[in-house]
Amino acid sequence: MIMEIKKYITENEPRMLEELFSLIRIPSISAKPEHHDDMLACARRWAQLLLEAGADEAFVMPSAGNPIVFGQKTVDPKAKTVLVYAHYDVMPAEPLELWKSQPFEPEIRDGHIWARGADDDKGQSFIQVKAFEYLVKNNLLNTNVKFIFEGEEEIGSPSLEGFCREHKELLKADVILVSDTSMLGADLPSLTTGLRGLAYWEIEVTGPNRDLHSGHFGGAVANPINVLCQMISQVVDADGRITVPGFYDDVEEVPQAERDMIAHIPFDEEKYKKAIDVKALFGEKGYSTLERNSCRPSFDVCGIWGGYTGEGSKTVLPSKATAKVSCRLVPHQDHHKISQLFADYILSIAPDTVKVKVTPMHGGQGYVCPITLPAYQAAEKGFEKAFGKKPLAVRRGGSIPIISTFEQVLGIKTVLMGFGLESNAIHSPNENIPLDIFRRGIEAVVEFYMNYK
Amino acid sequence: MIMEIKKYITENEPRMLEELFSLIRIPSISAKPEHHDDMLACARRWAQLLLEAGADEAFVMPSAGNPIVFGQKTVDPKAKTVLVYAHYDVMPAEPLELWKSQPFEPEIRDGHIWARGADDDKGQSFIQVKAFEYLVKNNLLNTNVKFIFEGEEEIGSPSLEGFCREHKELLKADVILVSDTSMLGADLPSLTTGLRGLAYWEIEVTGPNRDLHSGHFGGAVANPINVLCQMISQVVDADGRITVPGFYDDVEEVPQAERDMIAHIPFDEEKYKKAIDVKALFGEKGYSTLERNSCRPSFDVCGIWGGYTGEGSKTVLPSKATAKVSCRLVPHQDHHKISQLFADYILSIAPDTVKVKVTPMHGGQGYVCPITLPAYQAAEKGFEKAFGKKPLAVRRGGSIPIISTFEQVLGIKTVLMGFGLESNAIHSPNENIPLDIFRRGIEAVVEFYMNYK
Repeated sequence: MIMEIKKYITENEPRMLEELFSLIRIPSISAKPEHHDDMLACARRWAQLLLEAGADEAFVMPSAGNPIVFGQKTVDPKAKTVLVYAHYDVMPAEPLELWKSQPFEPEIRDGHIWARGADDDKGQSFIQVKAFEYLVKNNLLNTNVKFIFEGEEEIGSPSLEGFCREHKELLKADVILVSDTSMLGADLPSLTTGLRGLAYWEIEVTGPNRDLHSGHFGGAVANPINVLCQMISQVVDADGRITVPGFYDDVEEVPQAERDMIAHIPFDEEKYKKAIDVKALFGEKGYSTLERNSCRPSFDVCGIWGGYTGEGSKTVLPSKATAKVSCRLVPHQDHHKISQLFADYILSIAPDTVKVKVTPMHGGQGYVCPITLPAYQAAEKGFEKAFGKKPLAVRRGGSIPIISTFEQVLGIKTVLMGFGLESNAIHSPNENIPLDIFRRGIEAVVEFYMNYK
Repeated sequence: MIMEIKKYITENEPRMLEELFSLIRIPSISAKPEHHDDMLACARRWAQLLLEAGADEAFVMPSAGNPIVFGQKTVDPKAKTVLVYAHYDVMPAEPLELWKSQPFEPEIRDGHIWARGADDDKGQSFIQVKAFEYLVKNNLLNTNVKFIFEGEEEIGSPSLEGFCREHKELLKADVILVSDTSMLGADLPSLTTGLRGLAYWEIEVTGPNRDLHSGHFGGAVANPINVLCQMISQVVDADGRITVPGFYDDVEEVPQAERDMIAHIPFDEEKYKKAIDVKALFGEKGYSTLERNSCRPSFDVCGIWGGYTGEGSKTVLPSKATAKVSCRLVPHQDHHKISQLFADYILSIAPDTVKVKVTPMHGGQGYVCPITLPAYQAAEKGFEKAFGKKPLAVRRGGSIPIISTFEQVLGIKTVLMGFGLESNAIHSPNENIPLDIFRRGIEAVVEFYMNYK
């Protein structure tokens, strides 16, 4: 079986890559309004590719935001139905000067595809579609398959929940399959069984109504940047604990069995530090690095700006300072509740020398997938065949808020069959995917379908 | 005496204003390279006007940057010598659309001269030269007078220190007289007796070697923006005191007599807050607002940036965060020493989870003019005659680094006989000077010379 798939991939790879590249070349950056037309172009390209891969039908459907691609193939109304979810939007590519090749002009170098979206999520979703193609072309598909590809995942999927509520019948399925996560390593395959939730805010601090001369006013008027730094510095204490009152109320302690399993994951902390070039790590006291970045909540400033940021030195007491901040949450922490607690806390520590505005930007719930789920077990077999090892079940630190929305709105569990690697540098310059992973991914998904009944 | 000066001004005012206007009409904007020729034209016009006013000689001299105007009149080699410093360059006039009349076409309206440079510093330096003219024409001058007018004050006087070092003999004098500061009000004459110094740094914090996914790494890797905020928040304590060890070592407590005087300056804190639209002020505990912004040091973040600062929400654990920060210093604090203390402190509180670089950007010493100085007392008498009230001795929060350079390089104290008003809008659209202030200024400077022996 695996040999036949390999042969199919080898014979068809030039065409497959050209198809993938045609998607990558459309800069479908959902965060930037000027890419509005690219979103539609990318959705249309996907619909066409779904049809060519063997879907009975494929549509570009309107949503409250960017369009949604829906496609399906029905083999037997009584058979099980798999709903494949993916996203066709990508993150902005900045800082552009750090890219070795153009982010939207894919290049094959050293056995990798280099481009924005090469992994997240154009590359990974393409693996799903090419596995589907193989099964259709070889008359091996025994389940019905539906596809839903959205264009707003990187900005928090604001329209997808509404779309799901309106199209419950259309999206009816037995399980949702998603390739948008990563493995512990190419030789350490793993399946993601838990995801963190997310809450995201913008904090705007306004001091004086205009930029002031720091000589004439400095020392007498509160500086909004100083105040913003002061407030941000209060959110995490010296033990790495988040100080927002009530923040940990719904956090479930990581079960000892899971901690034991995590402790057995081969993990070289020195190598980890070296890869990102830091001398020391920092996180919540009492937890290991792997626990901290998967099973425990975190607080990060994602961006900050204010005052004079040009060359040289301008002496100014600025009028305004702004930060974008976010928390990763763990399952059971409700992002709405946390969002409110955080905003209340920031306002409670804001001095009356400035005006502070906290704007919630987006959020998502955490998620847990039981390893007893038949679809999970089929995915496990798929990985085992493709990578030669039974994959570990691990929780990951990232968030795909829509996964828990699917559960709440559609009542369907999701299996996270992600093929990413840390070195794929998603959301960063020089995003890439190894061709070897691309091929094995297709094999694993084909095997999933062969084992899912 | 005053009556005679008034008569002289009245009789000669049309000519005087035409001379001043001829200077103003030359757009000598030092910040803009395209005005290179205007700098030379303005310097030449000044040299001519110095000769016409009674100088024995006047030259346009080269410097490392824009030319410097030097002129002198020697009445008696044994008499005291006053060196008048001024600058002939002006700030850019933008935003042009906010001007009611053309910035470089002076207009008299409502008893004011409206133009860029009407006050800063063409108008104020013209007051000096016209007082000199009156004394020469009426055979009243008992001191030697030298003039040095530079063309780079608005861009930080980069060439003046070198010029002073090369021309120590030429610039030899007993006191330096400068009209480039302002008074508390037209009916509240004051002399500036102190200026704050300045130290300025850029702090760069580098965490991981690239932007990381905040889901995959958040909670396990120190975030450079969080760390930068943490460090900045430690520089000032809850009492508004700067925590850098040794920072206050050379700060002289404000003498009680000076504090009493400051307490008597009419100052409406509610109006002050309303003008900049803040609900509350913040500064060092134990000091009033006017003390905080003039006699006490301060710490301000002038600019900060890092991570994602575009629209929407990008979840990223950024690689780098940077801030431009500055301290206003008080007399006796050495900016070189403070610069080192600050850098040492920041490095001492930097956690080993990040790399921190502190780059000193520039600095200047503070300045104090003792009120016992004979030239200060002569200036005091001049103001008293011209404005009918003994001027208050006040320290100002801004910095004129060249004043302390004069003291260090030439060993000469400066008396700051400034006639500006806040409403003169220097550096802003609709800069102006009231004709009444222009006339009284001339009277005050004449009286200075009559009383300086």
